[in-house]
Amino acid sequence: MYERIKGFRDFYPEEMRSRRAVIDGLEEAARRYGFREIGTPALERTEMYVEKSGEEITDELYHFTDQGGREVAMTPELTPTVARMVVAKQQELSKPIKWFSTRPFWRYEQVQQGRFREFYQTNVDVFGSSEPEADAEVLAYCADALTGLGLTGEDFEFRVSHRDILGGLLDAVGDEVDTREAIRAVDKREKIEDGEYYGLLTDAGLTGSQAEQFDSLLSTDDLGELVEFAGTDRVQSAVENLENVLAAAEDFGAREHCTISLETARGLDYYTGVVFECFDSAGEVSRSVFGGGRYDDLIEGFGGQPTPAVGFAVGHETLSLLLERAEARSAGTFGTDYYVLSVGETRPVAARIARELRERGHRVETDLADRSFGAQMNYADSIGAETVVIVGERDLESGEVTVKDMYSGDQTTTPVESFPGESERPTYDDLA
Amino acid sequence: MYERIKGFRDFYPEEMRSRRAVIDGLEEAARRYGFREIGTPALERTEMYVEKSGEEITDELYHFTDQGGREVAMTPELTPTVARMVVAKQQELSKPIKWFSTRPFWRYEQVQQGRFREFYQTNVDVFGSSEPEADAEVLAYCADALTGLGLTGEDFEFRVSHRDILGGLLDAVGDEVDTREAIRAVDKREKIEDGEYYGLLTDAGLTGSQAEQFDSLLSTDDLGELVEFAGTDRVQSAVENLENVLAAAEDFGAREHCTISLETARGLDYYTGVVFECFDSAGEVSRSVFGGGRYDDLIEGFGGQPTPAVGFAVGHETLSLLLERAEARSAGTFGTDYYVLSVGETRPVAARIARELRERGHRVETDLADRSFGAQMNYADSIGAETVVIVGERDLESGEVTVKDMYSGDQTTTPVESFPGESERPTYDDLA
Repeated sequence: MYERIKGFRDFYPEEMRSRRAVIDGLEEAARRYGFREIGTPALERTEMYVEKSGEEITDELYHFTDQGGREVAMTPELTPTVARMVVAKQQELSKPIKWFSTRPFWRYEQVQQGRFREFYQTNVDVFGSSEPEADAEVLAYCADALTGLGLTGEDFEFRVSHRDILGGLLDAVGDEVDTREAIRAVDKREKIEDGEYYGLLTDAGLTGSQAEQFDSLLSTDDLGELVEFAGTDRVQSAVENLENVLAAAEDFGAREHCTISLETARGLDYYTGVVFECFDSAGEVSRSVFGGGRYDDLIEGFGGQPTPAVGFAVGHETLSLLLERAEARSAGTFGTDYYVLSVGETRPVAARIARELRERGHRVETDLADRSFGAQMNYADSIGAETVVIVGERDLESGEVTVKDMYSGDQTTTPVESFPGESERPTYDDLA
Repeated sequence: MYERIKGFRDFYPEEMRSRRAVIDGLEEAARRYGFREIGTPALERTEMYVEKSGEEITDELYHFTDQGGREVAMTPELTPTVARMVVAKQQELSKPIKWFSTRPFWRYEQVQQGRFREFYQTNVDVFGSSEPEADAEVLAYCADALTGLGLTGEDFEFRVSHRDILGGLLDAVGDEVDTREAIRAVDKREKIEDGEYYGLLTDAGLTGSQAEQFDSLLSTDDLGELVEFAGTDRVQSAVENLENVLAAAEDFGAREHCTISLETARGLDYYTGVVFECFDSAGEVSRSVFGGGRYDDLIEGFGGQPTPAVGFAVGHETLSLLLERAEARSAGTFGTDYYVLSVGETRPVAARIARELRERGHRVETDLADRSFGAQMNYADSIGAETVVIVGERDLESGEVTVKDMYSGDQTTTPVESFPGESERPTYDDLA
């Protein structure tokens, strides 16, 4: 007996059905916004991640040398891949480019609640617009997708921040601050002790009192105060941009879900403007459900023409936790429409009926294991069949089949030569 | 600029749309037969493949040692994984187990037409029935799925064989034949020279004249002749089984697509009964489009209770070649229902209209890049928008918006407060 690898999962049909409902919901909402599906490879060159994030990233990459001597990594996220794809065809692609996709990613991380080594994301990105409408559309899509899955505005909130406000405040507070390190400290804040947090800020070049000042600025929700404090164009235009995004989000119907939260920083280095994370309003799902933001420099960093971009990734694992917490997920059923039960030498007729029902798009099963009447009825029940069509030898001799409603248990006979006949979906109720 | 890895592909929206249509077609047909979707991991323990297929398989596996010291491989096929999953829950799963899934697999192979290192399959399997109806249902599903994609019976054929007929004939021809090696030789026959083929058969323990005798037996389509030649129960019951499968396929509507072809052997070692491959009837796609068969011993070999099984995998790459050859693939369109064009300070109204149209399930885009009227009309055209709703400042002053049919170019105005109003899908034709 072989074992599954730690942090990887098998999805049997029951679990897969829930996951498929989530994927379908996320993707249908994306299509309504005009996003187009793309398909992307599972392996990329390891250097693509190392050059952006440093050698330490390899600790959490599944990476190896392939038979052709290439250093390759199983993709830990989608953004570098879509950036590579935009660069490869940037002359041909008309802007804005609006893409989505759903697939697994892989990271060698500590396995914990809602975190696995193989995990699934739906990624949504807009390339080619620096306007606030692009950021706002991404927020509006998120809100629509979540409410489409049965969540209400009470269940989730988007905490919205801006990288350039954070960067501009750091500039204003200290002289030689390592912005990247300081922003990583902010991103970690909720997961670490105060002492460690301040330690990271001083490592990033702030004095103890600068760190405290910076931290107190982050907790304000008065953006005007920040502009005044910093007194720089950088902070002023960042605040204006954030306000414009929120104004567009108002028009697009997503403003009510947004809270300004400068403590939201996002860990990844490539963000440049608005960043946001989705949280469980009830606080039961402690980690962010998902997040994203603007990354205007990445395409150029990958060797392309300067191309503004904004996007995000929904992690299905934390989203599932939120859906469970909010009891938003409908159980659903497998929805077998018909089981065609065959006893005795009646297979040709049973097969003909099953075929004609399938041609109408119904989900139909028949006996594959030469089982008894009782065993077939049990199986029909176990798969949730709504109607059982019983094709028995004696019935057939008198030219009939029996149609049984599995919910009420009622049954009736009907002439075999006119079943299923002209009816799109013949049931007991039609025939009785 | 980073390069994609050889043998891996990016699918931009146009290509992805074709692929998605194929995936949807294959999966919808599987659901009509009552198959349930499962989800499976991208990595498995390398030993799972090595113990079944020998150390040489690692030459074509993407395999490595992970950070936890595990020997892992990117899954080259699905069957061992589903066998592992059946064994892990065999007490709980009610039989027959009917599963399908679509996902990528990986093999380090020579890249050529229709063959990549990352390739996509839809796998369909039935566990728990040794009856011929199970084999026949798999054949019937294949035929339905292919015709559902626009192919006709003229476009493809299923070449059907039986491992136990091959094995029984080898027993009858020679004394100490390595059946596995001989069957591999049969599987390779079409790809290699006669000399090499006979060399492989003699390596497997046949003399030159036995090899010729065996080869001539394979080309017969008179199964009775084979039974008579062998004179063993093994060949007789294998022939009966094949005939029973074909009789069930007749009832299930798939017999017309089947040709008996003992030269079809399938390369994989785990097959035990009926095997089949799908070929392009026109011969233009030279390799088999896909294949499968019965593998009754694999579950037990994986440490489970004896569980008969039959299944197959459709490779999307060769299937796409067949669909192209047969010109069966419909181009389709992206199908944008509405573009809501906003000029001047009209965003709140345009956004409200877009939202209400999306709530009705339509695919709707709006301006994300602060573009001119002309640029927005070009974009609306480029995304194939059927209707453009123009929200202009002057129109709005008189309480109207313009609705333009993009096919005819006709347009009309309509009161903004009643658009989209009660109509499910308001168009120029409704309003003019």
